[in-house]
Amino acid sequence: MTRRQLSLNAFIYPAGHHEAAWRHPTSAAERIYDAAYYQEIARTAEAGTLDAVFFADGPALQGDITHNAVGRLEPITLLTAIAAVTERIGLIATASTTYYEPYNLARLFGSLDHISGGRAGWNIVTTGNDAAAANFGLDAHPTHAERYARAREFVDAVVALWDSWEDDAVVLDRAAGIYADRSKIHEIGHAGRYVRVKGPFNQPRPPQGHPVLVQAGASNDGRAFAGRYAEAIFTAHQRLADAQAFYADIKQRAARMGRRPEHVKILPGISPFIAGTEADARALEREFNELTVPAYGLRQLERMTGTALGHLDLDGPVPVELFADAGDVTDNGRSRLQVVAGIVERERPTVRGLLHRLAGARGHRVFAGTPEQVADTIEDWFTSGAADGFNVMPPYYPGGLEVFVDTVVPILRERGLFRSEYTGRTLRDHFGLPRPENRFAGRTEVAAV
Amino acid sequence: MTRRQLSLNAFIYPAGHHEAAWRHPTSAAERIYDAAYYQEIARTAEAGTLDAVFFADGPALQGDITHNAVGRLEPITLLTAIAAVTERIGLIATASTTYYEPYNLARLFGSLDHISGGRAGWNIVTTGNDAAAANFGLDAHPTHAERYARAREFVDAVVALWDSWEDDAVVLDRAAGIYADRSKIHEIGHAGRYVRVKGPFNQPRPPQGHPVLVQAGASNDGRAFAGRYAEAIFTAHQRLADAQAFYADIKQRAARMGRRPEHVKILPGISPFIAGTEADARALEREFNELTVPAYGLRQLERMTGTALGHLDLDGPVPVELFADAGDVTDNGRSRLQVVAGIVERERPTVRGLLHRLAGARGHRVFAGTPEQVADTIEDWFTSGAADGFNVMPPYYPGGLEVFVDTVVPILRERGLFRSEYTGRTLRDHFGLPRPENRFAGRTEVAAV
Repeated sequence: MTRRQLSLNAFIYPAGHHEAAWRHPTSAAERIYDAAYYQEIARTAEAGTLDAVFFADGPALQGDITHNAVGRLEPITLLTAIAAVTERIGLIATASTTYYEPYNLARLFGSLDHISGGRAGWNIVTTGNDAAAANFGLDAHPTHAERYARAREFVDAVVALWDSWEDDAVVLDRAAGIYADRSKIHEIGHAGRYVRVKGPFNQPRPPQGHPVLVQAGASNDGRAFAGRYAEAIFTAHQRLADAQAFYADIKQRAARMGRRPEHVKILPGISPFIAGTEADARALEREFNELTVPAYGLRQLERMTGTALGHLDLDGPVPVELFADAGDVTDNGRSRLQVVAGIVERERPTVRGLLHRLAGARGHRVFAGTPEQVADTIEDWFTSGAADGFNVMPPYYPGGLEVFVDTVVPILRERGLFRSEYTGRTLRDHFGLPRPENRFAGRTEVAAV
Repeated sequence: MTRRQLSLNAFIYPAGHHEAAWRHPTSAAERIYDAAYYQEIARTAEAGTLDAVFFADGPALQGDITHNAVGRLEPITLLTAIAAVTERIGLIATASTTYYEPYNLARLFGSLDHISGGRAGWNIVTTGNDAAAANFGLDAHPTHAERYARAREFVDAVVALWDSWEDDAVVLDRAAGIYADRSKIHEIGHAGRYVRVKGPFNQPRPPQGHPVLVQAGASNDGRAFAGRYAEAIFTAHQRLADAQAFYADIKQRAARMGRRPEHVKILPGISPFIAGTEADARALEREFNELTVPAYGLRQLERMTGTALGHLDLDGPVPVELFADAGDVTDNGRSRLQVVAGIVERERPTVRGLLHRLAGARGHRVFAGTPEQVADTIEDWFTSGAADGFNVMPPYYPGGLEVFVDTVVPILRERGLFRSEYTGRTLRDHFGLPRPENRFAGRTEVAAV
């Protein structure tokens, strides 16, 4: 019997996850709107037998573009272009349940799954920012609770659409003139409060049955949603103990929903600076931090805390009262604030020090060390109930992924923790997830006329 | 000076435009959900230096899938997969202004344009069927007038989003820490009755400035829309005189809007059966017609006329009163009915005969002949004020396109009517359309904070 295997995604952020990556001479910031750039990155990830590449997304210009390369291509189209030049790597795109229509999104992900031969994953987000709302005719974004209520209906409708055609609906009997068995193509009749979709779908069931459902919310609603729907969870933790608590909570929630806990993969983010010595890795991290623009980091922190911070002395301490309310935020979808509050409480940094801590991966864990040290911390979290794998968030692209694949992956393989070649063809195969049953299979009903 | 050049698109319909194509042994109906199949078709079209490949679309299962291969992948993703394996061919997808959100659709087409290096086109449709409405929470589709009112706002908003970033907005000054000149990235502030979009966009201006705007409506509203927005128009005519009248009308409408008439390409559909002799071409057409399933054709005709037809004798005459109202239909978006009424009036076919006439291309012109004859009719329409080119609708795929590219295209080239190699890289280049000015260029305004 083989040892339990790690899942590893390459989380792609245009020039890299460090906010100053675009300024660094090793980054390829000139190429971030060029599909070939991402195709090359995906091939690197595939050479490292990673499970998937993963794109964040939001339907608005977010972040201060004066000081960071925050423009981006639409990820589903980009992943389709990647699908065309890769064979095995999974393809995960973020898309919003608040600002899409379920029939359209079901088609986009269904098509990506068909085009890629079963490699699609959908990172489900509810998009809580007013800039997005203003691009969709709203004055402000819906409340956290409303967004999750719509998200539940939305995912139910999308998954039902994917099931709309039974796997054997197309019979293609040329002689008899029968293309499909209409009794195996179903209306879904979803009639909810936020979402109404009649169906049937207009394409066959995706090769994976359902593209893999990924999710990242850490609020109470987000965790409940994850326990019910998510098959892979992207999460942010600075410390092992926090990650373990989150891991245990989600696995229990899944079990209470009647699901098998091993069918929910918990994947914290890790942003590794890697060099031959620990000192060199730390020096590399410092080099990036010194390229940050404080005005940019302050605006990010202002957005996170909802407080004007222009008056702060960069070399003075972070006022702890800034995070006085952070204990309550899991109810309103600002759980990242808690992670930051924890950093401030434990480390008592200067303002500049905090900005550097956040510059790497916006609250995700940054780790500087040798390939052995990176592999050690991955193994440590993996074997101590904190993670089933990781979303690897290279601080800079393409080099930061290349060094991970070239130096860390071989160590993980040697330790028997990670595949040396792909054993399956679909993202479900890579994650060890079953192909879902079709809810309509075997049901007899009168064909629609 | 070179002679005026034809535009030729390959309009892709999964197994072919003839409704019985999927039954014919030469079709590849087994592969219609396989991206590689469409990539091969697109490479054939590119080998023929065609202007573009073109996909129809609608967000519903339309047509009787028991008897025809009417399932389909989503076209924007499919074209992205095609973009990845082609260099020059244009990529036109149909998408609905009634059932999409402008910010989402602007991103999808903008990304396709970036990914393809400037080869995207958007065929704008308003989708007038209740099956689609029921997939988007509506009990019935909005009226023709409402759909066009929304379409105008929608296109205005999408095009403004594409202009949101001036062409030189990204400065990428690593040393100074300035990624973009924020004064060159604009909110669009579209606040209409149907569409409200604030902006700014979250990606750079597409390589073509705007992906090419294509349109097919032939109603009065549709023609007004075409005169104002469309750069290429897909249209259905059986007879030269009708095509000439339509051509003159649209060119005049464009001129009245202050546009140059040559910047609106009129492209009728033509579905050619091609063989070495005219008799063989006609025999091939008959072979396909004999594979039709009458029940399927009757249902299509019922949908078109809004009348139950199950009682008709297939070998009796078509009752002319079925089309008594067809004279008024340009106001309500059923202009295809007029084309069919004309066929019935002129040809007095049997019911079966009419079903065969419509089986080829749903009211578009079917032509059976030798390569010379196909080239002759193309040249005739092109030089007599009826067409700037054609949407070629092969009755069967892939063979029906291959024979067109192998036998008709060389004749058109010999006559100096069609390019022997691509002279440009973008779809605008192929169509001879200018890259639009950016509405915001040179405007000074206070940068958003």
